[in-house]
Amino acid sequence: MTLLRFRIAISLDGFTSGPNQSVENPLGEGGESLHDWIFPLAAWRQGHGMAGGIVDASTPVVEEMLVNNGATIMGRNMFGGHPGPWSREKPWKGWWGEHPPFHHPVFVLTHHPREPLELEGGTTFFFVTDGIDSALDQARRAANGKDVILAGGASAARQYLNAGYVDEMLLSIAPILLSSGERLFDGVSGLGGLTLASTVAAPNVTHLKFVRR
Amino acid sequence: MTLLRFRIAISLDGFTSGPNQSVENPLGEGGESLHDWIFPLAAWRQGHGMAGGIVDASTPVVEEMLVNNGATIMGRNMFGGHPGPWSREKPWKGWWGEHPPFHHPVFVLTHHPREPLELEGGTTFFFVTDGIDSALDQARRAANGKDVILAGGASAARQYLNAGYVDEMLLSIAPILLSSGERLFDGVSGLGGLTLASTVAAPNVTHLKFVRR
Repeated sequence: MTLLRFRIAISLDGFTSGPNQSVENPLGEGGESLHDWIFPLAAWRQGHGMAGGIVDASTPVVEEMLVNNGATIMGRNMFGGHPGPWSREKPWKGWWGEHPPFHHPVFVLTHHPREPLELEGGTTFFFVTDGIDSALDQARRAANGKDVILAGGASAARQYLNAGYVDEMLLSIAPILLSSGERLFDGVSGLGGLTLASTVAAPNVTHLKFVRR
Repeated sequence: MTLLRFRIAISLDGFTSGPNQSVENPLGEGGESLHDWIFPLAAWRQGHGMAGGIVDASTPVVEEMLVNNGATIMGRNMFGGHPGPWSREKPWKGWWGEHPPFHHPVFVLTHHPREPLELEGGTTFFFVTDGIDSALDQARRAANGKDVILAGGASAARQYLNAGYVDEMLLSIAPILLSSGERLFDGVSGLGGLTLASTVAAPNVTHLKFVRR
């Protein structure tokens, strides 16, 4: 069975990015602090082609994140670049350079059509203009029996949460306030049957895992 | 040293009460679910004059809440009743009946003067009209070397957090969404030096304790 697994880092006041997101500052002001816990981890660095790093209570959480992933869905804002139609002169290729860390098909929700973008290491970005159901169908097929990751951002996540499609949600709560930015749960009316299954306390983060029972 | 200790229950989306608070529904719609974890506990029931109850991972958290408390501060909305000047005909005595569970002086922040209200079991409510500094000064003196509890609600808490007066903050995060109501951290610009010191995972709640280092 192919699960839709959503994971996101969130501040104590419910933001998944800080204010004034831009190409220079994709997570918004202060938003990088949401991820302070993950950057030093060997498990995360290895997944991003870097050596070294530490092991802490977040390590098994990150390892679990990285297994059995067959496809990823993300919103246009998370793929980033600029709003509106795609530039033809200098097409935006995502935040991740020529070697994105996905190594599988990534489905980007957008209002603006674009040809698939194949980068190195097995990552191809497909641009889906006909909505969240279509993106999920395509991702499930592409995952070929593995799971589908819902990577965010907040707007894409809200749509899948409100549709009741999320099978697993990992909230990594950073012990900080961002005060403004994008709120994950704005306009989300409920958890749609997701219930708290486990909690992991780790340095600079608390992981809450919700599953559908 | 007298600490100002703040504790509050909060939803995943940052609310400390649901929408449409009223005398009949002081925590707002759905707001009672924020406290599902505490009501069954023997430690909580005992503190409220009831027998029975269970022991779980929240028990030591609640026991720690209940020690060394010399005085409490709360906002008018938490004391409750009605907005505006106090009724003379049928003065509101708080939500807790003739035997409030505080057993020490309680300082209520209000814009409307009122004589102190002495109830049974050692609880006297004092109504403070000259602001949060005055209430904290009075509470510290009344606590007589013990700690001062900041009980909420959200508005009172925000004022003390923004002033940087909170020495310890216990956030009890309930794994639910409330979607609307009162947001604890709206307009709070930072934690003012409070850092995460411990995390306790318990049934229906995750306790994050912040201290000033």
